[in-house]
Amino acid sequence: MKVLILGGDGYLGFSLAQYLKARNCFVIGVDNLSRRSFVKKFGGKPLTGDAPIFMKKNSFDEFYHGNYRHHVEGLLTLHEDLDAIVHFAEQPSAPFSMGSKENAAETIHNNVVNTMYLLWGMRDFAPNAHLIKLGTMGEYGTPPIPIPEGFLSLEPWGLDDEKLPFPKQPGSIYHATKVMDSVLIEMLCRLWGFRATDIMQGVVYGVALDENKDDSNLWTRFDYDDVFGTALNRFVAQSLIEYPLTVYGKGGQTRGFLDIRDSMECIWLALNNPPKEGEYRVFNQFAYTHSISRLANVVKSTAKEFGLDVRIKRIRNPRLEAEEHFYQVATDNLRNLGYSPRKLKSGVKFLFERLIGLKQEVNPEAILPRINWRRDEDVQETELVGEKKVQSLR
Amino acid sequence: MKVLILGGDGYLGFSLAQYLKARNCFVIGVDNLSRRSFVKKFGGKPLTGDAPIFMKKNSFDEFYHGNYRHHVEGLLTLHEDLDAIVHFAEQPSAPFSMGSKENAAETIHNNVVNTMYLLWGMRDFAPNAHLIKLGTMGEYGTPPIPIPEGFLSLEPWGLDDEKLPFPKQPGSIYHATKVMDSVLIEMLCRLWGFRATDIMQGVVYGVALDENKDDSNLWTRFDYDDVFGTALNRFVAQSLIEYPLTVYGKGGQTRGFLDIRDSMECIWLALNNPPKEGEYRVFNQFAYTHSISRLANVVKSTAKEFGLDVRIKRIRNPRLEAEEHFYQVATDNLRNLGYSPRKLKSGVKFLFERLIGLKQEVNPEAILPRINWRRDEDVQETELVGEKKVQSLR
Repeated sequence: MKVLILGGDGYLGFSLAQYLKARNCFVIGVDNLSRRSFVKKFGGKPLTGDAPIFMKKNSFDEFYHGNYRHHVEGLLTLHEDLDAIVHFAEQPSAPFSMGSKENAAETIHNNVVNTMYLLWGMRDFAPNAHLIKLGTMGEYGTPPIPIPEGFLSLEPWGLDDEKLPFPKQPGSIYHATKVMDSVLIEMLCRLWGFRATDIMQGVVYGVALDENKDDSNLWTRFDYDDVFGTALNRFVAQSLIEYPLTVYGKGGQTRGFLDIRDSMECIWLALNNPPKEGEYRVFNQFAYTHSISRLANVVKSTAKEFGLDVRIKRIRNPRLEAEEHFYQVATDNLRNLGYSPRKLKSGVKFLFERLIGLKQEVNPEAILPRINWRRDEDVQETELVGEKKVQSLR
Repeated sequence: MKVLILGGDGYLGFSLAQYLKARNCFVIGVDNLSRRSFVKKFGGKPLTGDAPIFMKKNSFDEFYHGNYRHHVEGLLTLHEDLDAIVHFAEQPSAPFSMGSKENAAETIHNNVVNTMYLLWGMRDFAPNAHLIKLGTMGEYGTPPIPIPEGFLSLEPWGLDDEKLPFPKQPGSIYHATKVMDSVLIEMLCRLWGFRATDIMQGVVYGVALDENKDDSNLWTRFDYDDVFGTALNRFVAQSLIEYPLTVYGKGGQTRGFLDIRDSMECIWLALNNPPKEGEYRVFNQFAYTHSISRLANVVKSTAKEFGLDVRIKRIRNPRLEAEEHFYQVATDNLRNLGYSPRKLKSGVKFLFERLIGLKQEVNPEAILPRINWRRDEDVQETELVGEKKVQSLR
């Protein structure tokens, strides 16, 4: 199978390249390395996966350094026999997108305008390639009814076989751009006959695959800062330095989580079972749902097995989100294709095994939230609160 | 009342300024005049409303020439007592947006990125102003169930008082940008407490208001070309030169239509009945729904009253859309506020009365479609077909 990965230097892209190479795929990567510069700009530094690109690109058969927008037509012309395009090349941070109007504009530009260029390139040069696009479970928000996989059934209206896209309620500019991407892709499958899998992925954790678990040079980037780190990775980093796990607000926020190894398996299942021409299909991609409080407890008890003593501390939620809510989500599509989810506990343990030796390198300054998405307080004030809290926690 | 109109030089903005001035409002306008240059670029020329901006700006108390994105923060600081912002400043042509990847990118940039800058400006300088945003009925597409005003009731799930945004299925990049705007605005009413009226407007026709019906210098722009003209205005222009009315495909496409005088009245009703803080409300704004075939028949019979003999001719549909479909749309919100719709027949007659004297100035070359939104034919080929058809019709 011949696969083009957009965002090959990123968290998922670098892992996927290795996963696919191990399965005899021909893998082409493109990346403008913007994740590196974004994280650096915010003072973050990943704990792993920060090798220079001249090393990381060895995981690909071909690698192009640059914005895919400028390369996509050439690449699609060069590789007429491409089976799939996996699109990971998006600005992935909600806090980043809410930090300033410039960040918000950059997020829309990078995620939506560039995706449109990709789609137009496919229209002209690869209309039959299978597009796998990374969306997020956050597109749905937390509605009071069960979340299906992308589509609302019209059975209540007596139309048993018909459906409409399920309503989306994003919670940040970043999440809104993912909704916008979905709108574009759903539409162009209808208009231009594309075949696409739109992945609504939960929160991924982990750094290594079974294939590379003993070679830390091949692990993917592990960001744990407040802007680019996700909840579970951040908790693990906090545990490593025996800092309190900072739960935002009540901690009743419930989300889907999955091990990065599961994420790779799901994408492999999607690649091997492509949709038909004109089909826009949605996979809700995660193992299980957990509340943030439960997540913190699992991390805390796992940390204990590694001799780390941590407690859980609630801080004011910098995000605007429901802290207790209904959450019921269908995940049948991937399970019907054979996906067998890893349990949270074993995944977290696998992660601690990898990172325990790196605990000296965790930077405590990077962990507390600096960006607030309320309109009535400015970021600076929140930064001060953050700093004070860092001091009081020491 | 103090109102800021973004897009004050456009089709609706120029009329609204006059309508509001006649009702003792203080009216500020901004426009970068892009509609003028877009139309010119495609070889079009409006039949009316093309006066230089130094004349048109007399309809405003203040007028700023430039992209509102660069002016919005200054304007909102200057006018702290602003009651409402009416946002008409968007690239309004579906064919334009489907013409090339550059046009598509420009449409996303102008409509979505710039709207984000407006919203961020409101966040910092005018969080209480009433935002009236022009969307389009085209955001909904043509779903097989009745279209409510913006929200899907969750009654079928036993949640009588809850609702979610109604699913959207746009049919062009332009329509997709309007959906994206709605996503942003709905979200920021939730997060930042804005009050917004999102108008899903039908197809507007007409050129004059009752207030200016005898002064052609004050009529708004009448574009009838294939890129910026809308169906009914184009039919009227065709009638004026006794050309066949070109119906795309079967003509069963059903849409909501309204006279521009109705459009002004509806916006006036919205201005005088603002939503409450944090409320995102949707008005479906049109008088009645008609099929394109029926529209052509009304124009044909009205033309006859003016001594014009026209026939109706079907041509291949350059758009990708259902040509026969279910269409049932709620319009209660505006009617409950007192909107009393004008009948199509009388509105079309009012329009003919205005334009009959200008029939020598209609350019027959401008009328046939040049942009095709299928992916399997390029624009050039369609242009040739268009030209051949122009010749064969002569």
